Amino acid sequence: MNVLIVTAHPEPHSFNGGLVDTAVNQLKKAGHSVDVDDLYAERFNAIEHAEHYSQRVDQDYFAALDEQRHHHKNAALPADIQRELARLEWADLVIFQFPLWWHAQPAVLKGWFDRVLVYGGRYTSRMRYDQGYFKGKRAMLSVTAGSPEAAFQPFGRAGNMVAWLWPIHSSLYYVGFDVLAPQLSYGVQGGGIKYQNEEALRKHLNVCKQRWAERLTHWECEKPIPFAGWEDWDEEGMLSKTAPLRWRLG
Amino acid sequence: MNVLIVTAHPEPHSFNGGLVDTAVNQLKKAGHSVDVDDLYAERFNAIEHAEHYSQRVDQDYFAALDEQRHHHKNAALPADIQRELARLEWADLVIFQFPLWWHAQPAVLKGWFDRVLVYGGRYTSRMRYDQGYFKGKRAMLSVTAGSPEAAFQPFGRAGNMVAWLWPIHSSLYYVGFDVLAPQLSYGVQGGGIKYQNEEALRKHLNVCKQRWAERLTHWECEKPIPFAGWEDWDEEGMLSKTAPLRWRLG
Repeated sequence: MNVLIVTAHPEPHSFNGGLVDTAVNQLKKAGHSVDVDDLYAERFNAIEHAEHYSQRVDQDYFAALDEQRHHHKNAALPADIQRELARLEWADLVIFQFPLWWHAQPAVLKGWFDRVLVYGGRYTSRMRYDQGYFKGKRAMLSVTAGSPEAAFQPFGRAGNMVAWLWPIHSSLYYVGFDVLAPQLSYGVQGGGIKYQNEEALRKHLNVCKQRWAERLTHWECEKPIPFAGWEDWDEEGMLSKTAPLRWRLG
Repeated sequence: MNVLIVTAHPEPHSFNGGLVDTAVNQLKKAGHSVDVDDLYAERFNAIEHAEHYSQRVDQDYFAALDEQRHHHKNAALPADIQRELARLEWADLVIFQFPLWWHAQPAVLKGWFDRVLVYGGRYTSRMRYDQGYFKGKRAMLSVTAGSPEAAFQPFGRAGNMVAWLWPIHSSLYYVGFDVLAPQLSYGVQGGGIKYQNEEALRKHLNVCKQRWAERLTHWECEKPIPFAGWEDWDEEGMLSKTAPLRWRLG
């Protein structure tokens, strides 16, 4: 299978970088092909902007979705976006490797969503959710966080990790991906900001890497996170009375 | 009072721009001072990166939080960050005006969080939540979304708006802001992508602006969104058994 790793960390020797290396090694060992899409190293321009579009449908008013649709239709999308889309086309699984910054992905990765998932090309009002463009492909977040695991439990001080990742998971499902459970590496302290001693931290990080490598031996057998789909909504777009009860527990 | 409006939309004549104008007019009419912080117009560099830091504590390994803390301590933060921090210092209320893109704020505003809310200066392990740096100041999101209001209800197809804004609200609370309820303008169709006729859309948008202007006549009397705080957590950082029941309801 083909695996694309989209990674967003400003320091190549960071633990996030180490998790990328772990994934590359493990996946290749299992016979998969791997492409690493390092948004910092490639200096991906993450800010959606009028100046990305060379054949504006409206020169006077920049409506991002209109220009995305227009440039997609005319095969005139920006070169960097065409490159990212080709990588997605190739991939069977897309892994997003990033540190949790302010309860979300770093800006460079947020902007990857803003720019790469083009309206008209990768989604429309009909082509989304379980009828999404990327149907059949899988996606998975691999996230590091500085606080320990307990803090991110539902009643923990750092807040429920499920809630922080829910917008990103939902965006991936929106364009049709089967979203696998996230890989969560907690207690990852950057640089000198450590609350445990160096040796304990090193051991802990090694365990995180081992867990990640082990996880990647069986991702193909995993069931994706369940989401409500077109059959669950009524004509007004609300959850229908016949939809499975689990969506109401939500 | 002093009101800072941080806005993130690539088109100055957009409806988001109109909501900024509405807010400026209404707030000035009520005697407030207003500063508009237009991240696109100012070309705010939203990507946290080693090259922003001139006096690296570690030249070989870039740990963002270490450099933030170090540069804060030595009054050597990047000039654009110093400018943003001065604006926050001045403000009694900070309004964030943005369109919902991929279940979150546009990348340029996500990066504003990544870069401006500096570790060591604006938060530490003790200086956060209800002991946060910005305690006493208020913040409010004003968000536009393309889909209609019904779609964003808890069981609607577009997903619960409360969930999409929860990470951002939590980040603001993390640094001590009292977070007011968001102002939500639904059914805002960009450019030519309209599912209602032009006249109906124009009327709808005018109603949104009127609602916004009206809201801004009484924001000072509003109660902030309640969050759990230090008194609610036990020594392990979990919600304590004596915490108010409402935190257990999620």
